[in-house]
Amino acid sequence: MKVSFIGLGVMGYPMAGHLVKAGHQVTVYNRTLAKAEKWRTEFNGNFANTPKEAVQDSEIVFVCVGNDDDLRQVMYGETGILAGVKSNTLIVDHTTTSADVAREIYAKAKQQNVSFIDAPVSGGQAGAENGVLTVMVGGDLADYEKAEPIMSAFAKFSKRLGEVGAGQLTKMVNQICIAGVVQGLAEGLHFARSAGLDGPEVIETISKGAAGSWQMENRNQTMWQGEYEHGFAIDWMRKDLGIALDEARRNGSHLSLTALVDQFYSEVQA
Amino acid sequence: MKVSFIGLGVMGYPMAGHLVKAGHQVTVYNRTLAKAEKWRTEFNGNFANTPKEAVQDSEIVFVCVGNDDDLRQVMYGETGILAGVKSNTLIVDHTTTSADVAREIYAKAKQQNVSFIDAPVSGGQAGAENGVLTVMVGGDLADYEKAEPIMSAFAKFSKRLGEVGAGQLTKMVNQICIAGVVQGLAEGLHFARSAGLDGPEVIETISKGAAGSWQMENRNQTMWQGEYEHGFAIDWMRKDLGIALDEARRNGSHLSLTALVDQFYSEVQA
Amino acid sequence: MKVSFIGLGVMGYPMAGHLVKAGHQVTVYNRTLAKAEKWRTEFNGNFANTPKEAVQDSEIVFVCVGNDDDLRQVMYGETGILAGVKSNTLIVDHTTTSADVAREIYAKAKQQNVSFIDAPVSGGQAGAENGVLTVMVGGDLADYEKAEPIMSAFAKFSKRLGEVGAGQLTKMVNQICIAGVVQGLAEGLHFARSAGLDGPEVIETISKGAAGSWQMENRNQTMWQGEYEHGFAIDWMRKDLGIALDEARRNGSHLSLTALVDQFYSEVQA
Amino acid sequence: MKVSFIGLGVMGYPMAGHLVKAGHQVTVYNRTLAKAEKWRTEFNGNFANTPKEAVQDSEIVFVCVGNDDDLRQVMYGETGILAGVKSNTLIVDHTTTSADVAREIYAKAKQQNVSFIDAPVSGGQAGAENGVLTVMVGGDLADYEKAEPIMSAFAKFSKRLGEVGAGQLTKMVNQICIAGVVQGLAEGLHFARSAGLDGPEVIETISKGAAGSWQMENRNQTMWQGEYEHGFAIDWMRKDLGIALDEARRNGSHLSLTALVDQFYSEVQA
Ligand SMILES: NC(=O)C1=CN([C@@H]2O[C@H](COP(=O)(O)OP(=O)(O)OC[C@H]3O[C@@H](n4cnc5c(N)ncnc54)[C@H](OP(=O)(O)O)[C@@H]3O)[C@@H](O)[C@H]2O)C=CC1
Ligand SMILES: NC(=O)C1=CN([C@@H]2O[C@H](COP(=O)(O)OP(=O)(O)OC[C@H]3O[C@@H](n4cnc5c(N)ncnc54)[C@H](OP(=O)(O)O)[C@@H]3O)[C@@H](O)[C@H]2O)C=CC1
Ligand SMILES: NC(=O)C1=CN([C@@H]2O[C@H](COP(=O)(O)OP(=O)(O)OC[C@H]3O[C@@H](n4cnc5c(N)ncnc54)[C@H](OP(=O)(O)O)[C@@H]3O)[C@@H](O)[C@H]2O)C=CC1
Repeated sequence: MKVSFIGLGVMGYPMAGHLVKAGHQVTVYNRTLAKAEKWRTEFNGNFANTPKEAVQDSEIVFVCVGNDDDLRQVMYGETGILAGVKSNTLIVDHTTTSADVAREIYAKAKQQNVSFIDAPVSGGQAGAENGVLTVMVGGDLADYEKAEPIMSAFAKFSKRLGEVGAGQLTKMVNQICIAGVVQGLAEGLHFARSAGLDGPEVIETISKGAAGSWQMENRNQTMWQGEYEHGFAIDWMRKDLGIALDEARRNGSHLSLTALVDQFYSEVQA
Repeated sequence: MKVSFIGLGVMGYPMAGHLVKAGHQVTVYNRTLAKAEKWRTEFNGNFANTPKEAVQDSEIVFVCVGNDDDLRQVMYGETGILAGVKSNTLIVDHTTTSADVAREIYAKAKQQNVSFIDAPVSGGQAGAENGVLTVMVGGDLADYEKAEPIMSAFAKFSKRLGEVGAGQLTKMVNQICIAGVVQGLAEGLHFARSAGLDGPEVIETISKGAAGSWQMENRNQTMWQGEYEHGFAIDWMRKDLGIALDEARRNGSHLSLTALVDQFYSEVQA
Repeated sequence: MKVSFIGLGVMGYPMAGHLVKAGHQVTVYNRTLAKAEKWRTEFNGNFANTPKEAVQDSEIVFVCVGNDDDLRQVMYGETGILAGVKSNTLIVDHTTTSADVAREIYAKAKQQNVSFIDAPVSGGQAGAENGVLTVMVGGDLADYEKAEPIMSAFAKFSKRLGEVGAGQLTKMVNQICIAGVVQGLAEGLHFARSAGLDGPEVIETISKGAAGSWQMENRNQTMWQGEYEHGFAIDWMRKDLGIALDEARRNGSHLSLTALVDQFYSEVQA
Repeated sequence: MKVSFIGLGVMGYPMAGHLVKAGHQVTVYNRTLAKAEKWRTEFNGNFANTPKEAVQDSEIVFVCVGNDDDLRQVMYGETGILAGVKSNTLIVDHTTTSADVAREIYAKAKQQNVSFIDAPVSGGQAGAENGVLTVMVGGDLADYEKAEPIMSAFAKFSKRLGEVGAGQLTKMVNQICIAGVVQGLAEGLHFARSAGLDGPEVIETISKGAAGSWQMENRNQTMWQGEYEHGFAIDWMRKDLGIALDEARRNGSHLSLTALVDQFYSEVQA
């Protein structure tokens, strides 16, 4: 199938590569040209000079850029995706954004008979590289069903959680849960050190039980050694918690821990 | 082997039972007599009227009562454990207490040539009933090695983490980590509901990834349904966090999340 | 002087009245007509049907509406203030908004040779009614000096804190400080009640010392009686803290307490 | 009147001096002898080598030592206050302690027909030196009335808030309120700096209004300059918040802000 991929960052670069490996004809666009050229060399694909050009002949357009503003920039305007897509194209956005911008673009796309689903991912850089991401989708069922087999090139699990925006909302739940797990783990290990315990032995003992978590299993060593960055930059986490806190302000949720952890992160940001 | 078990509560009752099933000759003591009588009927054991009597002929004495004060009450005084034990007896305390009281009893026991290890457990009521607890031990190595095969009657994993008190300190790390996981999960599910998402579908999607945890796996359903008590009473959790926060005050740890969660729990306590 | 006042809410209504009493010729606009009519009857002024009409002949235009969006609505568009003002008019905005929107309007106004200063107030409903508000101003010095004598009709103190936006930033500092004072006072009184103390006697004892505050002096009675709303709705406070937290995200401040108190307020919002 | 003063620290030293100046015959005791000698030289008094000796002939005994443990050490034991006082003596304790230890000593004193009131103070080092402390008293009314005129030597205000312990509980309310005020002020000033505002000008503008407080009035300059210690060591504040949090655990109060601020302080402790 002819597909496009807009945004060859840490996540998008390998995801677009998996689409090639799955047999699709992939045209990419990246703001910084060098990455697009490198990608074309590494995989067997094409690149275009604008989003508009990149999406011209595609049935499905994948996007994975940074945040709400970035997404608006590649979608709108004279050289944007919406200026280039044919009717009936499906746009699948893998960026982590607000639910609001997803609804906004869905509505604008509808007006020109184009489909849009929000499809943020989890699994990090390793998940993207190994093609084992989880995709959380919001949008029309038919659109999800059309996207699902293609996304399986880089995803080990995907699910539609509801109307447009529901993917982003689910990603927010994911980040809220992570905020709690990581803060608890960080305080636990910090306490362990202050108490003179051996971190790895403590983790070996408690990780199978009620305190156990993916983070404890996979991050305890780097955390014990004081290495707190893991590809997923603190900046992304603050962006995501900021989105969740804004949404909570609208939907009336109380996120005390999340708000506090977000502030703690502000202290370790550059 | 001749062993004693002091304290037939939610945890101690089945633990003492497993010792019988493993072939030991078990004498129990419980403050409330009725429970001791029920236990004798259910398992094939004896009971005594005071801790002192209960421990008279034993090589190992297991204890599982409520808190620091309770432990002091069954250890000290005219009818207490230390008044009854022979030289060379090993006392194994499964109560979750402060590290301080463990060190205090260790020292007093040493004076009469008696051994003491602190051995708090995790795994909850189900773990005690199914004999699959985790035991976190602090104390002398030889004592741990003596206790380990006997404790395997009710434990699937045990480990010595250091000198006396280290078991309690490890349990504190466990509870600190749980405080974070549970608070994050609670806020995540609360947000999911406010956002109109389907809780179980969200959990199905995110539980295998970086947000995943034992709590998410095992508690999401009851939490989604708003049932927040799971055998492990909120009172125990507050007791344990209180112990951890006291210890943190001494060892200089910073436990912002833990302190806050402890206060939140105060609002749901009776 | 010919002046206009846009927004006759709890604050704007009496503020505009004080301008009349000070001898100015005041034309008002209010979205809800009934309030404008009531105002005209109570004071000796005129009202107009749109912001544009209201500001036509004025040298200074005062604004006091709800939030960023409201402000944009009365400023922009075919019937907005900027469509009506003459060159050299000075717009003084008393709304509590973000610093961003102040800068945005300042820039747009400049393009048509119109001046803008941000001038949020403190002092609440009583301060507005009694004409004893404090005004925190950001903008060009000459503009401040022009506005200052007119604002003295409803202000007991005003100060220019820097370029455009500085008034709003100062108001944010004000609200952050209040968040801390009020939360401390609320917990103190709550503790006092739990401890069986007599609230008013406690306050009498501690209010002159290091724990003392305007809030303790003026709000302890209503707080002790459990009446937590004082004209200044919790909704305004959350709006203001939300603005401060957004700004902190940009300027890199760490506002742990503020973020937490903001979440606590979410629990008491309707 | 013959009085004694036990504990010549930052607070006790000048307080005992004021008693001399008020015409009383004062015998002091201090653990570190050098301070007692210095005090005797500076004021016209006597010192003794043990608390017991110091209190022998006194009608009233004032105490101002460090914490619960310190208080127990000067009260109990062979050379303690209770070993030395005559029947009908009144002991006035100015130490900030738990309410529990106050109740404990009250009961023990009663058994030997001795009176005890808890009388923690606020006003800091300056208040002690200038004799303008505030005294918060718990105990029997007659005892308070007996102490009040004597205490006026160093206090500008004193009040009995209830039975024994009520003074300490009131002091806890005081510290809880301060925790909120100071944290809000610290975040406000920190934000002001990040926002490029001029701290003193901001304070000048907001300090008379709803954000105003004793702390803002008296501490803004040192805080703006980043000097956070003011004679009142962070260690004392943590001790006091620890006492309040322990009491809250018993009386069922929810002190989220207080608990969090206490943790923040842990990060700046040596
Ligand atoms: N990294 C991770 O572990 C995870 C990231 N995510 C989310 O996935 C998204 C992408 O993350 P990641 O790949 O790490 O980010 P990167 O910063 O590595 O890549 C961002 C990509 O977006 C492009 N881009 C950004 N802004 C614009 C713009 N205004 N116009 C055109 N292109 C733009 C960048 O182009 P250029 O090369 O020119 O800069 C780059 O290709 C984010 O929303 C992130 O939150 C989700 C899960 C995990
Ligand atoms: N329940 C759980 O899920 C878990 C509990 N724990 C820890 O294990 C310990 C026991 O918990 P659990 O079994 O649930 O508690 P229970 O309240 O069910 O049982 C407490 C036991 O201690 C006895 N006891 C308490 N105080 C005294 C005293 N002063 N003198 C004599 N006996 C006393 C009680 O006797 P009586 O029957 O007379 O009341 C009872 O046998 C606690 O420290 C708890 O924190 C650890 C992991 C999980
Ligand atoms: N209340 C207080 O104690 C204090 C308030 N403030 C701040 O002052 C401002 C005003 O507060 P307050 O007077 O209490 O608020 P009110 O809600 O009482 O009044 C708001 C005013 O703005 C008008 N308005 C709102 N939105 C629009 C719109 N989109 N188009 C036209 N007019 C609009 C309203 O018109 P209509 O009558 O038609 O609704 C009304 O006149 C707020 O920013 C607040 O944060 C500052 C200090 C203290």
